Amino acid sequence: MGDRGGAGGSRRRRTGSRTASGGSGGGGTSGSQTEEELRAAAGAGADAGGGGDTPTPTAAPACTRTPSEEGDGEGVGPPDLRCHRLQESLFSSASGFSNYRGILNWCVVMLILSNARLFLENIIKYGILVDPIQVVSLFLKDPYSWPSLCLIIVANGFALAAFQVEKRLAVGTITERVGLLLYVANLLTMLCFPAAVVFMVKSITPVGSVFALGVYTVLFLKMVSYYHVNLWCRQYRAKSQAASGTKKANGNVVSNGVKYPANLTYRDLYYFLFAPTLCYELNFPRSPRIRKRFLLRRLFEMLFFTQLLVGLIQQWMVPTIQNSMKPFKDMDYSRIIERLLKLAVPNHFIWLIFFYWFFHSCLNAVAELMQFGDREFYRDWWNSESVTYFWQNWNIPVHKWCLRHFYKPVMKMGVNKWMAKIGVFLASAFFHEYLVSVPLRMFRPWAFTGMMAQIPLAWVVGRFLQGNYGNAAVWLSLIIGQPVAVLMYVHDYYVLNYEAQPTS
Amino acid sequence: MGDRGGAGGSRRRRTGSRTASGGSGGGGTSGSQTEEELRAAAGAGADAGGGGDTPTPTAAPACTRTPSEEGDGEGVGPPDLRCHRLQESLFSSASGFSNYRGILNWCVVMLILSNARLFLENIIKYGILVDPIQVVSLFLKDPYSWPSLCLIIVANGFALAAFQVEKRLAVGTITERVGLLLYVANLLTMLCFPAAVVFMVKSITPVGSVFALGVYTVLFLKMVSYYHVNLWCRQYRAKSQAASGTKKANGNVVSNGVKYPANLTYRDLYYFLFAPTLCYELNFPRSPRIRKRFLLRRLFEMLFFTQLLVGLIQQWMVPTIQNSMKPFKDMDYSRIIERLLKLAVPNHFIWLIFFYWFFHSCLNAVAELMQFGDREFYRDWWNSESVTYFWQNWNIPVHKWCLRHFYKPVMKMGVNKWMAKIGVFLASAFFHEYLVSVPLRMFRPWAFTGMMAQIPLAWVVGRFLQGNYGNAAVWLSLIIGQPVAVLMYVHDYYVLNYEAQPTS
Repeated sequence: MGDRGGAGGSRRRRTGSRTASGGSGGGGTSGSQTEEELRAAAGAGADAGGGGDTPTPTAAPACTRTPSEEGDGEGVGPPDLRCHRLQESLFSSASGFSNYRGILNWCVVMLILSNARLFLENIIKYGILVDPIQVVSLFLKDPYSWPSLCLIIVANGFALAAFQVEKRLAVGTITERVGLLLYVANLLTMLCFPAAVVFMVKSITPVGSVFALGVYTVLFLKMVSYYHVNLWCRQYRAKSQAASGTKKANGNVVSNGVKYPANLTYRDLYYFLFAPTLCYELNFPRSPRIRKRFLLRRLFEMLFFTQLLVGLIQQWMVPTIQNSMKPFKDMDYSRIIERLLKLAVPNHFIWLIFFYWFFHSCLNAVAELMQFGDREFYRDWWNSESVTYFWQNWNIPVHKWCLRHFYKPVMKMGVNKWMAKIGVFLASAFFHEYLVSVPLRMFRPWAFTGMMAQIPLAWVVGRFLQGNYGNAAVWLSLIIGQPVAVLMYVHDYYVLNYEAQPTS
Repeated sequence: MGDRGGAGGSRRRRTGSRTASGGSGGGGTSGSQTEEELRAAAGAGADAGGGGDTPTPTAAPACTRTPSEEGDGEGVGPPDLRCHRLQESLFSSASGFSNYRGILNWCVVMLILSNARLFLENIIKYGILVDPIQVVSLFLKDPYSWPSLCLIIVANGFALAAFQVEKRLAVGTITERVGLLLYVANLLTMLCFPAAVVFMVKSITPVGSVFALGVYTVLFLKMVSYYHVNLWCRQYRAKSQAASGTKKANGNVVSNGVKYPANLTYRDLYYFLFAPTLCYELNFPRSPRIRKRFLLRRLFEMLFFTQLLVGLIQQWMVPTIQNSMKPFKDMDYSRIIERLLKLAVPNHFIWLIFFYWFFHSCLNAVAELMQFGDREFYRDWWNSESVTYFWQNWNIPVHKWCLRHFYKPVMKMGVNKWMAKIGVFLASAFFHEYLVSVPLRMFRPWAFTGMMAQIPLAWVVGRFLQGNYGNAAVWLSLIIGQPVAVLMYVHDYYVLNYEAQPTS
């Protein structure tokens, strides 16, 4: 109310002064004040006493005569018949008006209405497709065989193997070279073994294998970090032992935390494995206590958004994808684009909900349970004005890992900055592909290409678009880019697995 | 870029100070600066030298030790292995983060994409329906009979009749009472005659008759204003003549404009009739010259938006309305709501374009041609936070007329403020109904009800919603309210005229 009154007041002040100074056409401007004040007073009354519409004292045009109190034309003074002023329309650039605040609300209302209609159309067309029981079948084909769970349990073996290598490296039973070889073998097996299992075991479902492979990927990244940090600690220990004869400085700085060989315990290893981070550290920052209300809210969000995600996928995503198959087979381009845009909306909403569910609810719940202090799982990527900023801020655990265990070590090896960045994207593209192609048992370069396409995209956006345009470009690439990849995979999977079936 | 850097900087400053003061869990915080600075420096490098990501000097946590220059763990100092900090996630209320500026861009991108899809879907479904020739048939049934044009030419007669009455009133040939009676008769005929013609002449089309009735309505309002102002002038003349014996004051104030009886010329009358205002005035403010570039731009807009409006109606509105008929007949409520929401989007866009086309392009073009100075045809209704504010600001010519020639005279007669306001809405509702029911030759109370429903709506919105919520409510009532009325009329018109035809 106050804001609106302020805007109106300033506008009237401007036009008022223009009238006072620029009344060149027609008669004098003496009468315009009364009419305007009466109108403004009536307007203020209509606003139920808001008073936002009355002109400010400075808004009165220069006028020496007091307005006639008797009203229009009935007083002794000349009739106040003027009700027009020399002024521009607001849309004309000459008016200087620029308050389009209401347009934001318009956008929000239009978006809500559009999507309410889509929702209603969907319900009318397909009925209610949400089926929580069906979700179980995505994880299990055969209720007596749980291959994904077995895979995840086996993953412990790789972590324990790495732990044993570290133990021996710490006491010097094996040399650094042997340790590195053992680590590399362990890490490679960690990637190849689950992939092989997924290919061999026919009872594993795509969703189950994505889950298992995700766990293995996280374990892989964590173990790389574990090795690196312990290696750095050994290097420091060797140097400080060599220097201990000459000076005994700085030893007190790290004395209030765990020092190197003392961190090699099962307890420390498993804390790291379950902690919501990919970067190992000897002394993680810990939150002082478990906040029960916070934890309960996060757990409730986890449950609620899981239901919502499953519901949206079943109700909105699956029918849209199924309807996209025919245009794709016919190579009907205008329909493909229409389907793509139709798919983009639910896909984007699901991605946004997934983001909140995973990065805020799940990781915070785990962190709260483990009293893990660092909750920076994401930064303000929604304000990204460049693609680079987005990738640096939307997934902080992975970004931190890439920076600490890939980008900086590679830079230290003397590699060019741009090569190192491309290397990071290549590694990221590899893991994206690994997590999609292996579970689908189908090698297609779409996820890989999608990740690698970020490099030219980042260059183009950074070069040509700035500010809000850059932000809009990032949003556009998110909203459009993902459904393209999704449609590609679904189409190929469909052709590969269901081509024999008749399409309606 | 600068804005983003500022946001990032302030965030980092906050978290940095938190780490310095709150490093209670785990080891000391001495090592965290180096890691953060390295990361930030790498981030700034990735931003192509933008430098927006580097911490501000005040952001450095309290740290007495200089960071080791040799990098992680290879220096003589203790290894800088810390890469976590005690901090909250941004979505947690404890983080104090509130920069969601990017969401506005997200809204815009989503809106554009949604409507691009609707557009594409429409083209695929219906092909191109735009047909400029068909527009002519909306105005003409029989190419040798132009009833609407004849009606508009006849309208001159009413204006001239009023002029002759004024002439006689000015010189006192007829009394005020006779003059008022003649005026009332003239004004009533002005409303009834075209309505009667529309009912009798079968060759008149609905669109043609809306146009003719619109012209008559405008003429009616203008003539009321013409009568009022001339009456006020006569009253003032009588008073000043009576007072001229005692004092000779204020005579010079209006001396530089046209004084009362001198304004009763054909030239003055026709200037008023064509001027883009409904309120008569003896000395309109005039713009100093015709700006040719401005005029050309407005004329181009008029042409372009006319085409766009016709195209959108033919391509988007008509098919949607046709598809709405079956659910309406079946009284299938969920489908009716779905159709309503589907219709709301094109209807709203068309209304917005119509608003710009009429109130900015057309009225400004006419005003520029006539060097009419007052271009305030609308105010910033898009920022309306109450329904009242919307109605006071979206159509300034009508609002001005209602205030000057209805609300204030009625108030002066001692009528209650609320009664006067309801009277304004009643009059407005009457003319809305007049302009819709007569051309369709079908009396339904929908337009009337729609206007009258604004009064309780205004009360509810003003009572319960403020600020952005009020603004959103105004938008919602605009977006939803209009298509409801449109669908009502179309449905009834369809039932009345085409019910015998089979529906597909």
